Amino acid sequence: MTVIQVINPNTSQAMTETIGAAARAVAAPGTEILAVCPSQGVPSIEGHFDEAIAAVGVLEQVRLGKAQGVSGHVIACFGDPGLLAARELASGPVIGIAEAAMHTATLVATRFSIVTTLPRTLVIARHLLQQYGFTHHCAALHAIDLPVLALEDGSGVAQEKVRQRCIQAKREDGSGAIVLGCGGMASLAQELTKELGMPVIDGVSAAVKMVESLVALGFGTSKHGDLDYPIEKPLSGAFQHLN
Amino acid sequence: MTVIQVINPNTSQAMTETIGAAARAVAAPGTEILAVCPSQGVPSIEGHFDEAIAAVGVLEQVRLGKAQGVSGHVIACFGDPGLLAARELASGPVIGIAEAAMHTATLVATRFSIVTTLPRTLVIARHLLQQYGFTHHCAALHAIDLPVLALEDGSGVAQEKVRQRCIQAKREDGSGAIVLGCGGMASLAQELTKELGMPVIDGVSAAVKMVESLVALGFGTSKHGDLDYPIEKPLSGAFQHLN
Amino acid sequence: MTVIQVINPNTSQAMTETIGAAARAVAAPGTEILAVCPSQGVPSIEGHFDEAIAAVGVLEQVRLGKAQGVSGHVIACFGDPGLLAARELASGPVIGIAEAAMHTATLVATRFSIVTTLPRTLVIARHLLQQYGFTHHCAALHAIDLPVLALEDGSGVAQEKVRQRCIQAKREDGSGAIVLGCGGMASLAQELTKELGMPVIDGVSAAVKMVESLVALGFGTSKHGDLDYPIEKPLSGAFQHLN
Amino acid sequence: MTVIQVINPNTSQAMTETIGAAARAVAAPGTEILAVCPSQGVPSIEGHFDEAIAAVGVLEQVRLGKAQGVSGHVIACFGDPGLLAARELASGPVIGIAEAAMHTATLVATRFSIVTTLPRTLVIARHLLQQYGFTHHCAALHAIDLPVLALEDGSGVAQEKVRQRCIQAKREDGSGAIVLGCGGMASLAQELTKELGMPVIDGVSAAVKMVESLVALGFGTSKHGDLDYPIEKPLSGAFQHLN
Amino acid sequence: MTVIQVINPNTSQAMTETIGAAARAVAAPGTEILAVCPSQGVPSIEGHFDEAIAAVGVLEQVRLGKAQGVSGHVIACFGDPGLLAARELASGPVIGIAEAAMHTATLVATRFSIVTTLPRTLVIARHLLQQYGFTHHCAALHAIDLPVLALEDGSGVAQEKVRQRCIQAKREDGSGAIVLGCGGMASLAQELTKELGMPVIDGVSAAVKMVESLVALGFGTSKHGDLDYPIEKPLSGAFQHLN
Amino acid sequence: MTVIQVINPNTSQAMTETIGAAARAVAAPGTEILAVCPSQGVPSIEGHFDEAIAAVGVLEQVRLGKAQGVSGHVIACFGDPGLLAARELASGPVIGIAEAAMHTATLVATRFSIVTTLPRTLVIARHLLQQYGFTHHCAALHAIDLPVLALEDGSGVAQEKVRQRCIQAKREDGSGAIVLGCGGMASLAQELTKELGMPVIDGVSAAVKMVESLVALGFGTSKHGDLDYPIEKPLSGAFQHLN
Repeated sequence: MTVIQVINPNTSQAMTETIGAAARAVAAPGTEILAVCPSQGVPSIEGHFDEAIAAVGVLEQVRLGKAQGVSGHVIACFGDPGLLAARELASGPVIGIAEAAMHTATLVATRFSIVTTLPRTLVIARHLLQQYGFTHHCAALHAIDLPVLALEDGSGVAQEKVRQRCIQAKREDGSGAIVLGCGGMASLAQELTKELGMPVIDGVSAAVKMVESLVALGFGTSKHGDLDYPIEKPLSGAFQHLN
Repeated sequence: MTVIQVINPNTSQAMTETIGAAARAVAAPGTEILAVCPSQGVPSIEGHFDEAIAAVGVLEQVRLGKAQGVSGHVIACFGDPGLLAARELASGPVIGIAEAAMHTATLVATRFSIVTTLPRTLVIARHLLQQYGFTHHCAALHAIDLPVLALEDGSGVAQEKVRQRCIQAKREDGSGAIVLGCGGMASLAQELTKELGMPVIDGVSAAVKMVESLVALGFGTSKHGDLDYPIEKPLSGAFQHLN
Repeated sequence: MTVIQVINPNTSQAMTETIGAAARAVAAPGTEILAVCPSQGVPSIEGHFDEAIAAVGVLEQVRLGKAQGVSGHVIACFGDPGLLAARELASGPVIGIAEAAMHTATLVATRFSIVTTLPRTLVIARHLLQQYGFTHHCAALHAIDLPVLALEDGSGVAQEKVRQRCIQAKREDGSGAIVLGCGGMASLAQELTKELGMPVIDGVSAAVKMVESLVALGFGTSKHGDLDYPIEKPLSGAFQHLN
Repeated sequence: MTVIQVINPNTSQAMTETIGAAARAVAAPGTEILAVCPSQGVPSIEGHFDEAIAAVGVLEQVRLGKAQGVSGHVIACFGDPGLLAARELASGPVIGIAEAAMHTATLVATRFSIVTTLPRTLVIARHLLQQYGFTHHCAALHAIDLPVLALEDGSGVAQEKVRQRCIQAKREDGSGAIVLGCGGMASLAQELTKELGMPVIDGVSAAVKMVESLVALGFGTSKHGDLDYPIEKPLSGAFQHLN
Repeated sequence: MTVIQVINPNTSQAMTETIGAAARAVAAPGTEILAVCPSQGVPSIEGHFDEAIAAVGVLEQVRLGKAQGVSGHVIACFGDPGLLAARELASGPVIGIAEAAMHTATLVATRFSIVTTLPRTLVIARHLLQQYGFTHHCAALHAIDLPVLALEDGSGVAQEKVRQRCIQAKREDGSGAIVLGCGGMASLAQELTKELGMPVIDGVSAAVKMVESLVALGFGTSKHGDLDYPIEKPLSGAFQHLN
Repeated sequence: MTVIQVINPNTSQAMTETIGAAARAVAAPGTEILAVCPSQGVPSIEGHFDEAIAAVGVLEQVRLGKAQGVSGHVIACFGDPGLLAARELASGPVIGIAEAAMHTATLVATRFSIVTTLPRTLVIARHLLQQYGFTHHCAALHAIDLPVLALEDGSGVAQEKVRQRCIQAKREDGSGAIVLGCGGMASLAQELTKELGMPVIDGVSAAVKMVESLVALGFGTSKHGDLDYPIEKPLSGAFQHLN
């Protein structure tokens, strides 16, 4: 039995459910999905400040998941907050959804577009592209200019804006795939893939398959070198629970 | 039922079996592996000339596999010969084993080393690192300076040289994972991973899991844009069978 | 006497003649041009699949040219199909026309534009820019959105589209030179250079001069290292003639 | 009066004092240095996990400093933990000491070397080099292979190891300056600069001058675009004090 | 007493005064500004030819400044002409204004725009971005298409064009700061910063603070390695005064 | 009749003759070589300061050459001093010998090594590699640690050191060609090519062939865009002769 802990780094229960559903929809028969979010933190993640706080929540959850014996972890926010820190803490694989979506896109197309929420988060995507090596594989970045939680307001307005931007990206960017730049967009990928006739990639589902694959291959995070377990030291105050 | 066609681009039956076995060892319960090699071409691939010939064999096999209704394809030679051409031809996903191993390495370590056969093939790996975006993720490239088919001579000499180089890479490179740079090394990965206590990655098994994942996600190769099916035109002579 | 074999990688006789004429127009007094095309293959090259097939035809011709004692080879298709493979096979220099045109452009301008045929071939140019080191020297890539053979249909429509795109590139790109992205455009360069008052570069003629230069300098392809002759091994089936 | 808050992101009082002293030693007459450290967190920072925790402490302190009306902030840990998050939160300038030291090095030499503590932190420096644009300006990275707090144990062993590595770097790297890769090394820079006869750069002092400069120029962190103040949202649990 | 020699590399007295005023406006209490220009050379710098001549004037002035015992030097032309040559000659720090402005911009924003005079100088800025490592930090380059000396004609037309371009850049580029790409624009920065509500950076003032900072830190140009004093050799003709 | 002006940017007559001889040895029958050096300047070029002075001498000579109606220009110093400035001034092509040698090397090998004189000049080569796009094509840089004029002292010591370094580079670098990094080494290339059995490239001869080729193709330096003729303005003092 493979158990994958899918961590929504923000504290929105609605989004945790969206993400969990997307994860379960693609999980292999033998895979159980634990969709969780931090007990404390930020209700949505729309910048570096939010990410810094969310990263601690991710670590809290990775620690809990590890204690529960999960096989691997997914960080289900498009900025991949706390990814390398979580890899140090975990023994199993840890995959960020931006990472998962970007890797996947390069396997099915020569270049991809990104459609995300607020313009201020584009810099986060740009930095990840650079860190992962995909700067030249990204044809264009788009923002719908609505906050993350607009995706959970039930109106469908944000979803329609995402759809319009994807259609525009298909027409103008010269790319072969579209990456959805927010965990809250996970439920849109399948339908948009059909409507547009090209891969529209949600990182949550992509990350679940990557964790499953790494587990099947017998790989956890490498403990040789710079992703080894954190050096033990007494954490103080609100961080004591991470000891 | 997912059927994955694992194409050994050279004509060596022994290596086709090695590769097929590695593929089957990690295939999910519902996955069938078809390990094939071209009907004509080169017995081993150790340079660009060999690759150019092998690429046509890959296309021949992709075409056959597609006719048989396979779900996806693996190109099981570390130079990923014919990868983008095969993607044009295929409707399902096509994954090269260099690509698969390199992507996988970046998910479990911050940097990786490569151990391959002949020094003259290092340039091929360097070009792939650049094309895939992983130049800065590769800490070092090593060659055991033995030809590819030495891996099939039964003496174990080449295997021992690979092992020694991996041990040296672990000690000296400051990397967290090792990528095996030849399809013929596929059977070594699991044991070396155990012995070294760090991920030693074979691209064949990694590629199989990637194809399975993409199929599960509903993604084939994008047919929007530059990986669309080849424009139909009359092929002549020895290439007529590719029409 | 320097004999340069100019290889049109596709099987179009008309294009072979266009290319041969462009080569002869700039050949030095002591240079003889052998314009050839493969005996079998694809009638035009508009993607990676076509290129993979054409590469074998290029190798077939290089082998023949070498037997005839030619001094060097030109690969006259803008994707430079089979370039490194041909360099392994050849003892003399081998120059691709994309390579030749791009190098030339950087010698007369700080940045250049590319005008090619179909949008789907742009990715090939992008990959070559990266491999040759010229990504930052290319200001813009344009496609006229007509197939290669439209250049040989006698209507002049494609030629006029090339001209219009060059004029637009001059006005908008901020570049100092234009590279024509197809062997079939070779005959247009001289006139466009005059009309636009800026270098419009055809790779065929540029490549001929590069081969002449390398021959005069006493350089063939380096046989020290990774471009050494292919390791001898029995080629089978349709590839036996390459043994 | 310019007040610069120098934040030691770990909770070590000894190191906070070392850092504060280094800051005061170069502060201009009109500058007051407030050397602080988080009320809770990690006693030393030697990896991504430690950094993730320290980043929250940095934010806590930036918030306090802002309430006190400080002019700008220095993040005095070589990984620059929380830098972009702190920039969102702050109105004045925020400078990391890795950033400060690297920028400074490029102003007095064409290439520099880095000498840091544990090998596992090298990846953090590499990522910062890439993010700041200085990958090609760094000739070599060295680690003395001692933990950060060895710099505070009073034995001088770590200090001597730093000195030896700097001497070796001068002899072997072909670089013109050395960057000290830990806030705890701040007190060594001046003496090593004299002994080696080349700039040995401590980021704490460099960062103080940068903040002073930006304040004098009238620049805070840009609030136009992606470093604008964090979008207001209710933080929960241990993060409520950051609201 | 810190004496900073601010060198206008062209021979325009009006521009030397503009630059000197900008320098003095930000100089610390203990800093004296010597604003100078070469005794001979070009009246404005608008290309590589102008720069090559201006570079010699810069060296002439650095030599004089050094004889006068100045603490450091600023090269007040946006192409930073003669920067590395001047660093060899000088013992104190030498800062170019393009360098100063670009470095400063990356400290207060994630990406910046450049607004300069003639389109033909954009290539100079592009090369500097590449050399300094900031290619990916520059969101866009703009030229007002007026010559440098239009900034000194008293009509205010050029100044208004700069202002309009800055406003446009703010609206369209997605950058957080604007770099003014000409020493003659120095006087505009402060007002535009206020009007636009984002950092509009003049390199002259930024460079003055950098020299002050380096002097306070005890750093001159590194004389270890490739910026060591020029090897002594007899200069002839018009260059004898540089001996 | 093609007349190529080969400009030795330093004032050494001996080196001008060495360079002229190398140029004549490869010139086509219809090509006349004018080997010149500036009337004033530096006797050898070993750093940025020397280069800045030499650049003016290059411009002086280009101006004279243009008046004499030469077809094109070679800048025969490995730092390519004044290259872009000379391109503005010239109507014909201008080629630097570093540029020529590096381009040539990439046409006959996948990677090359550089062997130059003093270690302090390596940074110049590194910057040119970056500007020309060949950073990743250079496997290693070597310096014999002797000054440029040691090549003209008649003892042969420097020549032997170059030879030893080339042999070492062949053995250790994994590159397929060697670039000689000084105009004064021009006479060594042919013999070393024979002895080492791999291309050892002198930029002087390579540049002559490039100029011949560009002239034959009908290309001068592009006057559209940023290499257009310098904007006319009154040059003063020692620079009046450049008006």
